[in-house]
Amino acid sequence: MKKLLAEFIGTLWLVLGGCGSAVLAAGIPDLGIGFAGVALAFGLTVLTGAYALGHISGAHFNPAVSIGLWMGGRFDGKELPGYIVSQVLGGLAGAGLLYLMATGIDSFSLSDGFAANGFGEHSPMGYDMTSALVTEIVMTFMFLIVILGATHKNASPGFAGLAIGLALTLIHLISIPVTNTSVNPARSTSQALFVGDWATGQLWLFWVAPIVGAILAGIVYKYLAPNQD
Amino acid sequence: MKKLLAEFIGTLWLVLGGCGSAVLAAGIPDLGIGFAGVALAFGLTVLTGAYALGHISGAHFNPAVSIGLWMGGRFDGKELPGYIVSQVLGGLAGAGLLYLMATGIDSFSLSDGFAANGFGEHSPMGYDMTSALVTEIVMTFMFLIVILGATHKNASPGFAGLAIGLALTLIHLISIPVTNTSVNPARSTSQALFVGDWATGQLWLFWVAPIVGAILAGIVYKYLAPNQD
Amino acid sequence: MKKLLAEFIGTLWLVLGGCGSAVLAAGIPDLGIGFAGVALAFGLTVLTGAYALGHISGAHFNPAVSIGLWMGGRFDGKELPGYIVSQVLGGLAGAGLLYLMATGIDSFSLSDGFAANGFGEHSPMGYDMTSALVTEIVMTFMFLIVILGATHKNASPGFAGLAIGLALTLIHLISIPVTNTSVNPARSTSQALFVGDWATGQLWLFWVAPIVGAILAGIVYKYLAPNQD
Amino acid sequence: MKKLLAEFIGTLWLVLGGCGSAVLAAGIPDLGIGFAGVALAFGLTVLTGAYALGHISGAHFNPAVSIGLWMGGRFDGKELPGYIVSQVLGGLAGAGLLYLMATGIDSFSLSDGFAANGFGEHSPMGYDMTSALVTEIVMTFMFLIVILGATHKNASPGFAGLAIGLALTLIHLISIPVTNTSVNPARSTSQALFVGDWATGQLWLFWVAPIVGAILAGIVYKYLAPNQD
Repeated sequence: MKKLLAEFIGTLWLVLGGCGSAVLAAGIPDLGIGFAGVALAFGLTVLTGAYALGHISGAHFNPAVSIGLWMGGRFDGKELPGYIVSQVLGGLAGAGLLYLMATGIDSFSLSDGFAANGFGEHSPMGYDMTSALVTEIVMTFMFLIVILGATHKNASPGFAGLAIGLALTLIHLISIPVTNTSVNPARSTSQALFVGDWATGQLWLFWVAPIVGAILAGIVYKYLAPNQD
Repeated sequence: MKKLLAEFIGTLWLVLGGCGSAVLAAGIPDLGIGFAGVALAFGLTVLTGAYALGHISGAHFNPAVSIGLWMGGRFDGKELPGYIVSQVLGGLAGAGLLYLMATGIDSFSLSDGFAANGFGEHSPMGYDMTSALVTEIVMTFMFLIVILGATHKNASPGFAGLAIGLALTLIHLISIPVTNTSVNPARSTSQALFVGDWATGQLWLFWVAPIVGAILAGIVYKYLAPNQD
Repeated sequence: MKKLLAEFIGTLWLVLGGCGSAVLAAGIPDLGIGFAGVALAFGLTVLTGAYALGHISGAHFNPAVSIGLWMGGRFDGKELPGYIVSQVLGGLAGAGLLYLMATGIDSFSLSDGFAANGFGEHSPMGYDMTSALVTEIVMTFMFLIVILGATHKNASPGFAGLAIGLALTLIHLISIPVTNTSVNPARSTSQALFVGDWATGQLWLFWVAPIVGAILAGIVYKYLAPNQD
Repeated sequence: MKKLLAEFIGTLWLVLGGCGSAVLAAGIPDLGIGFAGVALAFGLTVLTGAYALGHISGAHFNPAVSIGLWMGGRFDGKELPGYIVSQVLGGLAGAGLLYLMATGIDSFSLSDGFAANGFGEHSPMGYDMTSALVTEIVMTFMFLIVILGATHKNASPGFAGLAIGLALTLIHLISIPVTNTSVNPARSTSQALFVGDWATGQLWLFWVAPIVGAILAGIVYKYLAPNQD
């Protein structure tokens, strides 16, 4: 139960912090934080969550991460369903809190996107579905390579939270223009359910592609560094 | 006495660095640091103060942090009054030094806000009181979860200052547009006393909400990871 | 083989992440990440790659780094050819993936530069060949000083990945306007082969200058701290 | 001799990286790194130099730092003259290399300031001499508090380079608009000697104020945490 509550809080923080910075602070004229600020915010949700909650639940905060760690032999498959449910519920709670905060000004509208992920005409810069698929698969693949590598028993102890959080920042620096960056089905689900319409229609890609990338990374990393613990 | 002087210097640094970057450097056309630079500055005051002074006083620099640590069973209640007084006085000293620096150009005016916290028409983007309350409670709650988690005996030793400082950066990346971000009654008090007027009138929220968030976090974290030291 | 695969993946990540952020996200009006965001992205590819793959291959991801480490007595010359080939192939794979992603919008064109390195009229701000030579030699020299120093047995264990990654960020903060920043012949080669034309014509400088800088650093650092391991 | 060469290289890097990012990259329209990027660059010169060279010379790179450490009982006074001379010469070498790089475009002119420090009409935003004095004294005071605290034997081992480098970033986020930020007489001297004229005329302040701030910090920190080693 404590593990699941930690995953719930961590995923809440990821969605509230990452999507919150995008919705509340990215586009303000002159002073806004832009895509770089949003990238930093997403990464710092994981960095801070990892140091705070990692010793309780392992700090996945992302169904693709749980699946990739399971494929890589680092996570017990029996725990998968509970983790994924907690992550999706945590994401929804984060989106709900953000909605409560964001509606404090009249100009707010869910039809501005609420930081939902999308492709084609719903990609921030209009990238097509093929771009979106490649981007989400490759970015999640590399995210899991960093996670599996930085938490390997031969890696520098303590630095995993830093490397993994900043990997998520890097992934956003590259790919916000393509899909608004998911690599995390829980984060995509929470925003899609609030926005509805096109966002739920495109949600399948943000479950399929991250999970495919994560599974591939689990396989590749197992070959790269087999004696894991 | 040494602990109290450390809290005084650290809170001075938090206010001078965080509010100073906002007042002096945020809004300069083209080259200014914007909200993202201010967010980084606030976080780095705590990160640097934590590594420099944490081994002396624990590096709270914030009445809500002291109260949250006390609720979480990590801080002796007898020390609370001294810590809070030192923090408020340190904040005032930081604001005083900033005033001395900022008045070196004619265009400076306290009526531009002096980085005070506010809601409604005094929110940077006009968010109402409900938004402000939710934001300050939730952000302080998560700040304390990170503090309690990253300083837990099971957490990676040494990384707490990094995680806690960057958590404050993250909190500012999200919430400067809503309330100018407090999560710290000492920081709010110093700026409100210089600005007076509306800022002292709204100061109550920036004591109540952070303390409520901190108390809730203390209770939740105690359940999450009880065997603390 | 595992070392070479790690170098391949790491250099792929460096090119995809660094050049990818430049091509996809730097120049978007208002929200784009600018040169500072690109600088952060390049550094984070190395920081994350170092913590993830450093315990497998040493995380060079750069022929100049391998050569500098060899000159400094830290890397076996027999491994040089394999490392350099893997790095160049990894860079090409990264550029290929980026091309696949970037072509998802009609406005993309290789003739916009694809983040290739250049001087004279192909320098981002028009710096001449002498500037480019000095810049690439000096920047690679300092990159290797940081690498050799931060991985020295007397240095703080664990922090090398952080220092080296952020050194690459710093180098980009300084020198993107001059040459688009190389300090890495593999990164230059991949982008030049996609762009062709002027980019392959100027590629020689981005092999010669980084290697010269790296060799000088190996010699100087050996004098500074001889008892290495 | 090795210590002095390390101080020379480190101060060269500080001036080349910090002032270099300001001269080459800060003001480029749309893509430029702004004051926040320059602040990051200055901090990263010290962060990277500290992990690379700290185990050789202690990584001062700044006469005020050497004097503050001496006042705080951490540095032998007999070494002061050699360190200060090496720092000033290293700064000059860094400025010379930057001059060589910057003159590769016709639009470069030393009369644009070359990142020299100044006050009154030579302050970036026009701050008067009193502001400049207060700013440089207080900022150097806090820089030394962080240095003395983060290198204290009770502080987390290894994190000093991170905290000290990011403290310099923070100081620049606050005070570039006031004086272009010195807190380092060697950095001020190198730029003033290239610019001449007003810059040499105002150079006295950027020796006096940082040294006063450093001495005060040495005294205060000795009281705060006496059992140093």
